[in-house]
Amino acid sequence: MGLFVYKFGGTSVGTVERIQAVAQKVKAAQDSGDQIVVVVSAMSGETNRLTGLAKEMQKTPIAREMDVLLSTGEQVTMSLLCMALGELGCSAHSYTGGQVRIVTDSVHTKARIKRIDDKKIHADLNAGKVVVVAGFQGMDEDGNITTLGRGGSDTTAVALAAALKADECHIYTDVDGVYTTDPRVEPNARRLDSITFEEMLEMASLGSKILQIRSVEFAGKYNVALRVLSSFSEGRGTLITYEESAVEQALISGIAFNRDEAKLTITGVPDIPGAAFKILGPIADANIEIDMIIQNVADDATTDFTFTVHRNDLVAAKAILTATSDSLGAKSVTTDEKIVKVSIVGVGMRSHAGIASKMFKVFADENINIQMISTSEIKISVVIDEKYLELAVRALHAAFDLDKEPKK
Amino acid sequence: MGLFVYKFGGTSVGTVERIQAVAQKVKAAQDSGDQIVVVVSAMSGETNRLTGLAKEMQKTPIAREMDVLLSTGEQVTMSLLCMALGELGCSAHSYTGGQVRIVTDSVHTKARIKRIDDKKIHADLNAGKVVVVAGFQGMDEDGNITTLGRGGSDTTAVALAAALKADECHIYTDVDGVYTTDPRVEPNARRLDSITFEEMLEMASLGSKILQIRSVEFAGKYNVALRVLSSFSEGRGTLITYEESAVEQALISGIAFNRDEAKLTITGVPDIPGAAFKILGPIADANIEIDMIIQNVADDATTDFTFTVHRNDLVAAKAILTATSDSLGAKSVTTDEKIVKVSIVGVGMRSHAGIASKMFKVFADENINIQMISTSEIKISVVIDEKYLELAVRALHAAFDLDKEPKK
Repeated sequence: MGLFVYKFGGTSVGTVERIQAVAQKVKAAQDSGDQIVVVVSAMSGETNRLTGLAKEMQKTPIAREMDVLLSTGEQVTMSLLCMALGELGCSAHSYTGGQVRIVTDSVHTKARIKRIDDKKIHADLNAGKVVVVAGFQGMDEDGNITTLGRGGSDTTAVALAAALKADECHIYTDVDGVYTTDPRVEPNARRLDSITFEEMLEMASLGSKILQIRSVEFAGKYNVALRVLSSFSEGRGTLITYEESAVEQALISGIAFNRDEAKLTITGVPDIPGAAFKILGPIADANIEIDMIIQNVADDATTDFTFTVHRNDLVAAKAILTATSDSLGAKSVTTDEKIVKVSIVGVGMRSHAGIASKMFKVFADENINIQMISTSEIKISVVIDEKYLELAVRALHAAFDLDKEPKK
Repeated sequence: MGLFVYKFGGTSVGTVERIQAVAQKVKAAQDSGDQIVVVVSAMSGETNRLTGLAKEMQKTPIAREMDVLLSTGEQVTMSLLCMALGELGCSAHSYTGGQVRIVTDSVHTKARIKRIDDKKIHADLNAGKVVVVAGFQGMDEDGNITTLGRGGSDTTAVALAAALKADECHIYTDVDGVYTTDPRVEPNARRLDSITFEEMLEMASLGSKILQIRSVEFAGKYNVALRVLSSFSEGRGTLITYEESAVEQALISGIAFNRDEAKLTITGVPDIPGAAFKILGPIADANIEIDMIIQNVADDATTDFTFTVHRNDLVAAKAILTATSDSLGAKSVTTDEKIVKVSIVGVGMRSHAGIASKMFKVFADENINIQMISTSEIKISVVIDEKYLELAVRALHAAFDLDKEPKK
């Protein structure tokens, strides 16, 4: 018996049949004695349909009206789910973000939640009802409809779980939990029973797109226990905890990788103060995000600079860098998009020395050349030739015993 | 310069191009110095799509959730229209029924408006904005989304016009006004410059489906000047006034007809008190609406009864009537669905005698047999064989000079 917030994304409510399956799952939980609040996204495809209509009206649709438009997506899902629950004899009430009310700031299309009024929800739960809330949306102090931006339904679920002091917040997706790495690359990848928030943040930002980073941060801030589960199968999923797990004591928890990056190098840059700013400033001004940055030690009064950007930004970044190179009198600009970033992540790094050298030994043994290295407190990332991706991931997975349950 | 409420139905906002055309019309009105509040329906087809989804969830969808679902239709239109207006450089704000706020009772799917808070609208209008409001919907005192039922967008427009003390409420449809009769039957049918509310009510209930009866009643009650115009062409349309027109002094204003009725006759009914109730009671109990009723003078201690119902109800009504006939010991039950009801409507009847006899002379001259007659203060209806419909309408149109402008 407990209070749970369940969140179902667009794929999980993408058809009439899937909404009916969600209703079955919610009904079963309620029958077992739990109180359930459900947060739903728009049916998959609906947001794209609405965005398409908006773009036909205006090249850059007015943000306030975009929110009015897109918020209808979740409103449709929540009413259909209540009907499906009703058909199962389960009494349910739906609420838009404005109705419940989820108060946000007024930054349309990427609003932030300020507070939630939980009176209606508690009253309904106490009356034995399931409460269904539209994800992704809220209302500002003046009553304008707002949306939380991409992936905002996760944030709604976490914020509701925090406001309601829910026992757990369940994020139902199309995967049955967080894995040590992508099972399509390493078939021995193992589902983790739990992972810390910090590890999840590093995994998410490194390309494991299960949860929105903002919702994970939010959950950490408000001590909400998040659990990632599959909408389509049974199972306990992966619990994301805000404490370092006392249960699992692995050195590392998982291997993330990112194939979306490209590398740019500018060589022969005069080694003078301000060079880094002159090189990276124009890139940032063009709203191109830079991930890894490496500056080699100066040699003969010149230095080399290497950094990575998203592959989609490579052409623009190269043009900017070439102009910078000319004005600085640098030697050359080279680019490489056949790269991949591979990262090992784990809070175990904090208390265990030698993890980096163990990682590098794996690469040495496999004859994989490391092009760039970057480290944080709980992660080590390297950039390598993309042709070595599978080899590197499998070798690391084996070397760190990720296919085995950790010692308890 | 004035304040106008414009209402556009589903066909008028059915595509991206039509919404853009509506935006042009609204922009032109604002440029001429008028303040404009626009009420929109869901894009044509959208309500049926949503209803279809609901029916897949539940045979009889929960009324509260049906309102949540259907209200998204107008919300989509209103945001798209604001974007289209924005593209024309015209600042606009959209509001759902709940936002504006249109307070209704809690009777889901057919709520009635209790009051409207016009503060936000006046503030926006005074700031030079166009205000776009979702038709058909409101919010009850507890914040639940409600809808006003079929045609409710007309009611929203009239209620807003009343609350805002608008100069006129324009109902844009796919016809360019109210005609003396259906132009498909009588090519000489003439658009009326004005018509009284009472005439409009009789015309609407007799089958001219331009406006919802409830919105016309509402307009009459609150002295709102309604004007029916075409979304797709220019023109002054038809003004619906609450006073007997001092301008037009025609005997009758129009000819309405209804092909949807069927006639049932029970003969040889013992002429005893309570016979009418015994015959019509069971029909009403089956929720079948009865239109015209005629009881002939008793003859030989028995009497004959004739009444009309909607053709869709004929089979059910006949079965009930046959059972009644057996229990009453009546002689026979006969039915006829090859009938049509033709009515002349006009407030001129009140002050002019001889209109009925003039009507009956037309039928006599054309050798059309009249099967039933029913009259009210401003209308005379007859039931005739349906094959005479066109002949009757054209002969009446000519006899009452409806193709000519009335004397001023």
